[in-house]
Amino acid sequence: MRLCTVRLSDGGTNAAALNSDRWIRLPFSDVGALLREDHWRQRVQDVIAAGGQDVDSETITTALAPVIAEPGKIVCCGHNYRAHIAEMGRPEPAFPTLFAKFADTLTGAFDEISLPNEAEQLDWEAELAVVVGATLVRATEAECRRAIAGYTVANDLSVRSWQRRTTQWLQGKAFDATTPLGPVMVTADECDPSDGLRVTCTVNGQEQQRGSTDDLLFDPIALLAYISTFTTLRPGDIVLTGTPGGVGAGSTPPRFLGDGAVVETEIEGIGMQRNVIRIQSNELTSSAS
Amino acid sequence: MRLCTVRLSDGGTNAAALNSDRWIRLPFSDVGALLREDHWRQRVQDVIAAGGQDVDSETITTALAPVIAEPGKIVCCGHNYRAHIAEMGRPEPAFPTLFAKFADTLTGAFDEISLPNEAEQLDWEAELAVVVGATLVRATEAECRRAIAGYTVANDLSVRSWQRRTTQWLQGKAFDATTPLGPVMVTADECDPSDGLRVTCTVNGQEQQRGSTDDLLFDPIALLAYISTFTTLRPGDIVLTGTPGGVGAGSTPPRFLGDGAVVETEIEGIGMQRNVIRIQSNELTSSAS
Repeated sequence: MRLCTVRLSDGGTNAAALNSDRWIRLPFSDVGALLREDHWRQRVQDVIAAGGQDVDSETITTALAPVIAEPGKIVCCGHNYRAHIAEMGRPEPAFPTLFAKFADTLTGAFDEISLPNEAEQLDWEAELAVVVGATLVRATEAECRRAIAGYTVANDLSVRSWQRRTTQWLQGKAFDATTPLGPVMVTADECDPSDGLRVTCTVNGQEQQRGSTDDLLFDPIALLAYISTFTTLRPGDIVLTGTPGGVGAGSTPPRFLGDGAVVETEIEGIGMQRNVIRIQSNELTSSAS
Repeated sequence: MRLCTVRLSDGGTNAAALNSDRWIRLPFSDVGALLREDHWRQRVQDVIAAGGQDVDSETITTALAPVIAEPGKIVCCGHNYRAHIAEMGRPEPAFPTLFAKFADTLTGAFDEISLPNEAEQLDWEAELAVVVGATLVRATEAECRRAIAGYTVANDLSVRSWQRRTTQWLQGKAFDATTPLGPVMVTADECDPSDGLRVTCTVNGQEQQRGSTDDLLFDPIALLAYISTFTTLRPGDIVLTGTPGGVGAGSTPPRFLGDGAVVETEIEGIGMQRNVIRIQSNELTSSAS
């Protein structure tokens, strides 16, 4: 099953499900609201069986919201691809390196991504994202496996200059509307990262990253189990699993994204994001209300 | 004006305001819901003027929820007291060190704080917490000053063993229900940290930390302005401003909190928290639904 969240012309959002080649509107504001329902898979099947209302194809290709519009938690993992850890000459870590993003950090899979021009050294990080489908508290791996609703694509776009201002990465990882999440969530029964899904990122048509999800040191199940040891995971929460080698900061000399750059992030069997970068002028625009 | 959020016997919560020596129930589920209303100060005054329903005094001393039950964002600052930076022999940082917590990390000002026994090296960090009262996007300092709803007390209780497992502190800072927030929010017209409010933390009656809020390197206004450069702050969001010297990890030998420890965290003019630590047995309790 493939699910997405579309933007409506009135400013709201709506979940949708793919039925062969038709996207059907679901009676939920986003995929997160759907996942908070009991028996959500059955709810989708019931709507599809009843016929349902189509979402037009232009909306699906242009007006996607983040698959989960307002996750309660977004937990991200760094240093998690074995090949990348090895090429950096690092030992394999005993524990996952975890940091957070905010719901405001997310954006749609085809949105322009706009940054102020003091946000220098903007870099790409293609990532598999896990969508949590049940409540997990100090859960076993078996419980975590059953609790994965599905998988989607993220680009953990990182402002390296801010990420490195202090020891803690948050400020370089949490510029508003800079982490595209989507285009779709593929349910876990149709997608298994342990099979080795290809993860790629291209910039202006040139491939920069290529990895495989079977190279993850801490796989989705291990990450959920570890995270649930200290904090509750709930339906609609998101876990970003880290990025393979090939980021701009790692090349010699380092290369970063400029105004107009086109970033395409793809995971085999899930889908591709396409985002154009916009670097704003230096004028300070402020608002307070 | 002093506001708090009380727990109800039905599992919900309710905001309350102090009117001389009576706490009056407000028609909002928590102080965060109140702050999301336009003209919230007037709303409180209207309820008080109409008489209102009292909250009994036992509830106020035993059944407090976090002042803000579900902040959209909790942004925390480290290394922010000048005296503490100097005693550690560090240079003054050019930028605030920021990390996040989750709404689930919060607990009430008088709650027992329970941790699994693998959460070793539990440490105290008394902190001034800023409560945001307006939306801030790339805001000026003048806008930030007007946007502060008020101040409360937090203890950024930190599991040092987990905090130091990797470079990123999140996993040691985000155990569920370990950051008491309260007891009350004092509105900004009645409380000014630049006046130098005494911040103290005692453990089992012995003072461990003593600082003054006029020693903050990045004061509340500077922190809001900086954070609003990269992410939107909204009514009910919380900014923790860092802790003065005297944490357990900094003493020789290091000292940490054990089962039954009583931690009292106080900020002059705001109030005092009192939390008893409970370290659970090693049995893995898990749940998934």
